[in-house]
Amino acid sequence: MSQRLTLAIDAMSGDRGPSVVVPAVVELLRDSADVELALVGHPGDIETHLATVPSGERSRIRVVPASEVVTMDEPPAEALRRKRDSSMRVAINLVKSGEARACVSAGNTGALMATARFVLKTLPGVDRPAILSAIPSADGHTHMLDLGANSSATARQLCEFAVMGAVVAHDVHGLAQPRVGLLNIGTEEIKGNDVLRQAHQWLRSSTLNYTGFVEGDQILSGDVDVVVTDGFTGNVALKTIEGVARTLAGIAREEFRRSPANRLMALVASPMLRRLAARVDPRRYNGATLVGLNGVVVKSHGGADSVAFANAVRTAMLEARKGVPTQISELLQAQDFGTEAT
Amino acid sequence: MSQRLTLAIDAMSGDRGPSVVVPAVVELLRDSADVELALVGHPGDIETHLATVPSGERSRIRVVPASEVVTMDEPPAEALRRKRDSSMRVAINLVKSGEARACVSAGNTGALMATARFVLKTLPGVDRPAILSAIPSADGHTHMLDLGANSSATARQLCEFAVMGAVVAHDVHGLAQPRVGLLNIGTEEIKGNDVLRQAHQWLRSSTLNYTGFVEGDQILSGDVDVVVTDGFTGNVALKTIEGVARTLAGIAREEFRRSPANRLMALVASPMLRRLAARVDPRRYNGATLVGLNGVVVKSHGGADSVAFANAVRTAMLEARKGVPTQISELLQAQDFGTEAT
Repeated sequence: MSQRLTLAIDAMSGDRGPSVVVPAVVELLRDSADVELALVGHPGDIETHLATVPSGERSRIRVVPASEVVTMDEPPAEALRRKRDSSMRVAINLVKSGEARACVSAGNTGALMATARFVLKTLPGVDRPAILSAIPSADGHTHMLDLGANSSATARQLCEFAVMGAVVAHDVHGLAQPRVGLLNIGTEEIKGNDVLRQAHQWLRSSTLNYTGFVEGDQILSGDVDVVVTDGFTGNVALKTIEGVARTLAGIAREEFRRSPANRLMALVASPMLRRLAARVDPRRYNGATLVGLNGVVVKSHGGADSVAFANAVRTAMLEARKGVPTQISELLQAQDFGTEAT
Repeated sequence: MSQRLTLAIDAMSGDRGPSVVVPAVVELLRDSADVELALVGHPGDIETHLATVPSGERSRIRVVPASEVVTMDEPPAEALRRKRDSSMRVAINLVKSGEARACVSAGNTGALMATARFVLKTLPGVDRPAILSAIPSADGHTHMLDLGANSSATARQLCEFAVMGAVVAHDVHGLAQPRVGLLNIGTEEIKGNDVLRQAHQWLRSSTLNYTGFVEGDQILSGDVDVVVTDGFTGNVALKTIEGVARTLAGIAREEFRRSPANRLMALVASPMLRRLAARVDPRRYNGATLVGLNGVVVKSHGGADSVAFANAVRTAMLEARKGVPTQISELLQAQDFGTEAT
């Protein structure tokens, strides 16, 4: 019997819980014969949705009971302190105990980060974990972090984020020498603040393929594979990208329906417009990774449908197979970043 | 004879100098009978392009000589110290002396800000000037500032930016009670850092129509009319918006040409696609304002064509007519913002 890869899934998480989670994972099980899943949550709720799952896939699903659910607006500290039997916490516990190699949740990001950090701890040498996502760019993906785990970052933390981003870009997206850029408001050496200039110096003498400062318009340009920034700026940039895409899509839809003539033109061009929409479909890049932890934890968008949720699970599967946390530890040990005076 | 409005134009600025500036201003003069212009720069270069200008418009153009030009990559401090007879400096001097009511330049942003700040000074009560631009949103425009004049901001400075943004949104875009939001990484009171939470408190007790924290995806959503942030975050967000728009346009063009069938579909739909492209044309919102100064200074994009440059001049004209600097002073005096301990 081959080595099986077990993933823990917080089945109660997200806006629609098991009704989205179950269809998503069934498809994944069909494609990946060596994967098995632990679905964590209210057994009754989960079983209802498992009723129609074919036996081949059903045999690789185990239901792990958890009596509580962390709500989307629950303060992280409270979720951590009070909900010890939440589906989120139990799923993370399975990673800690080694019963699962990764976990996926579409729950409250702050609670997921706080709980994962408490249960799994950060990797040796990592000061702070970060949130990373792959965003489709001009030709491929850009990996951006931190997307909001921390609201500021020291130079050393930025350097650690650079290592984490390079590992994910290498392991999950197969880039041999991921180009790493540091987000700034200009590309000249003198731009930015002391923290950025210090991180720039350290990254230049690292073993990473560091290309220097990049600006906001280079996040999606394909100039770099990894964009490193603090959690405030990264969060604003990510949400700005989502907002622009949504606004432009809204304007396009409005134009396509403006008049009978436009509706006809949109109908004629629909095969092309549909393909275009598929290419920029945000569901394709669902799944943010909580990097820097002693374990693989992937966060799906709360509003994810089953296509999007399946992509988040696929990301977790890849990171677990490649052993991303170990890779991060090793690459970090090969660096000689300083620590700033504070 | 009616009161004439004189605008000073740095005719040597931008990637293409007078060859873009002259056609842009001729159209503006045709539309606005009470406007006259001082074109500042090398008289020979400017006169060449004025040769074909109709006499009605030509009579309202005065050429003001300046022997130097600030280059796009010149450090601001050097431009300020060494190029005292630059077209940029002379144009700003005309505002200082009262010979012009506003000036427009497509030159180096840092040099323009440093020179304008040195020559015109900040308004009484204004700690730092900021860069503001109107960005087309879901329904109208969002005014965002600071876009990079400063790389950080105190709570008090953020509050001053809020006043400046509200005045421009009111005076230039005719909004009675502009809704002002403060950019953060969450909308709850506890989000962000101390600076943001302090600014939030002061803005809540101001006379502005302050709606609270907003996130990156609300910059273009139409939820607010003014988005206030520090120059680092604002610059990243603005460039991110430009980058996303460019990437999406590139992907769309690629799809439209992918195959003969797609080219045909794009041709059939071209009236609709052209109108869509016009609606999101970035040239329509060219013209960033340097706010908080004792005078109106508008910065055009360096690569602006004459349509875009004309829009920057139109912004300057409107701000001069409305007396934006005076309005900012008055609205600022009506507030009771504190000053943080540092």
